[in-house]
Amino acid sequence: MTRTPPITVAVSTVIFSLRREPGAEGPRIMLPLVRRTRDPHEGQWALPGGWLDPAENLEETASRTLAETTGLAPSYLEQLYAFGDVGRSPSRVVSIVYWALVREDVSLATQQHNVAWFDATALPELAFDHNHIVDYALWRLRNKVGYSRIAHGFLPDLFSLADLREVYEAILGRRLDPANFRRQVENSATLIPTDEFRTGNHRPARLYRYNHDVELADRGPLPHGKTRP
Amino acid sequence: MTRTPPITVAVSTVIFSLRREPGAEGPRIMLPLVRRTRDPHEGQWALPGGWLDPAENLEETASRTLAETTGLAPSYLEQLYAFGDVGRSPSRVVSIVYWALVREDVSLATQQHNVAWFDATALPELAFDHNHIVDYALWRLRNKVGYSRIAHGFLPDLFSLADLREVYEAILGRRLDPANFRRQVENSATLIPTDEFRTGNHRPARLYRYNHDVELADRGPLPHGKTRP
Repeated sequence: MTRTPPITVAVSTVIFSLRREPGAEGPRIMLPLVRRTRDPHEGQWALPGGWLDPAENLEETASRTLAETTGLAPSYLEQLYAFGDVGRSPSRVVSIVYWALVREDVSLATQQHNVAWFDATALPELAFDHNHIVDYALWRLRNKVGYSRIAHGFLPDLFSLADLREVYEAILGRRLDPANFRRQVENSATLIPTDEFRTGNHRPARLYRYNHDVELADRGPLPHGKTRP
Repeated sequence: MTRTPPITVAVSTVIFSLRREPGAEGPRIMLPLVRRTRDPHEGQWALPGGWLDPAENLEETASRTLAETTGLAPSYLEQLYAFGDVGRSPSRVVSIVYWALVREDVSLATQQHNVAWFDATALPELAFDHNHIVDYALWRLRNKVGYSRIAHGFLPDLFSLADLREVYEAILGRRLDPANFRRQVENSATLIPTDEFRTGNHRPARLYRYNHDVELADRGPLPHGKTRP
């Protein structure tokens, strides 16, 4: 008796990063997409991912396909949701979707011709239900920034309060009052001031580092993967 | 060429309800479990669930297996997490786990001999990784009660403030000050006082109903399933 597999499992990842374009006022939330080279949806852009390898845990497949398609290693990786509606693909595919944050200084592997960064809030029509998935990931990110220190996943080790405020502004999509923001952050005790300053066109800005005693985001009793908060 | 399916997809549900035992001080968080009638783990208790039907969406399989195994229809149903570690079952199984709340007044289908309620905080050793899954669901419930109106998923249409406080106490595992609790709830504007009272041994308690203009829990742009909040 031949059993054909009616349902297959894929793992995809929404990778957010803040990227600054020349001349733009502040950074924007961007994500890398991969152009599909085969049907279905050949030629359309899609989230990086691949089939679940029977020998790998879900998070391992997420990390591996992420590295293979984009050359990126995330600073934060968390399961987002399992998307499994009947009509979302010609065959029945359940996609376990992860979301990841990468710091501003990373670059895509230069060999990858079919990978490019897109503004997360102004995407073209993507393959499958991937527009819907990105919308949900954006909602989760905006939600989480309110009750966790997830914003630090976008920043290098040392950053100014203005850098941190720009991250919040990009995520929330609105300007924040600098004085109020400084007060709130200083009261929260999640940052440690250093003796280093950034100098440049403006007056010197003190650099802070993240208090590593505090978790980036509380994920409860779930196992912690390859993250370095 | 014969392709054998190396990975299968199951859907299971953690169903929380508050149940009151004679003589106990307050209600406890209970969940129904199903005794397995075949290997692996024959004879052990496990979460209700079953294989994903290729013709059903994930949430439809969750609702159907829930009804088939326990006869219950939930007041709240939400995806919890996808568990897919390599060693969690003899064959490779990815379990999409939902969590559900049911009101106190429901009963299990009486025909079901292999279904019973267990105290969620004092479980025996369950099949597979189901103890770990229940722990995670409890963590999510306790977390969510702090920033949403999820507690109402345990209550009937009309309830007293003492009923509501008991729900919070059972979820959080600690006593709350009645006067403080009343003040906080009244300030939140999520309850509508009715003209009905519960009479009994104590002085009459005013009954409230839930303000249906407010969502039970914000799930963002995800599709809303068969819930009746």
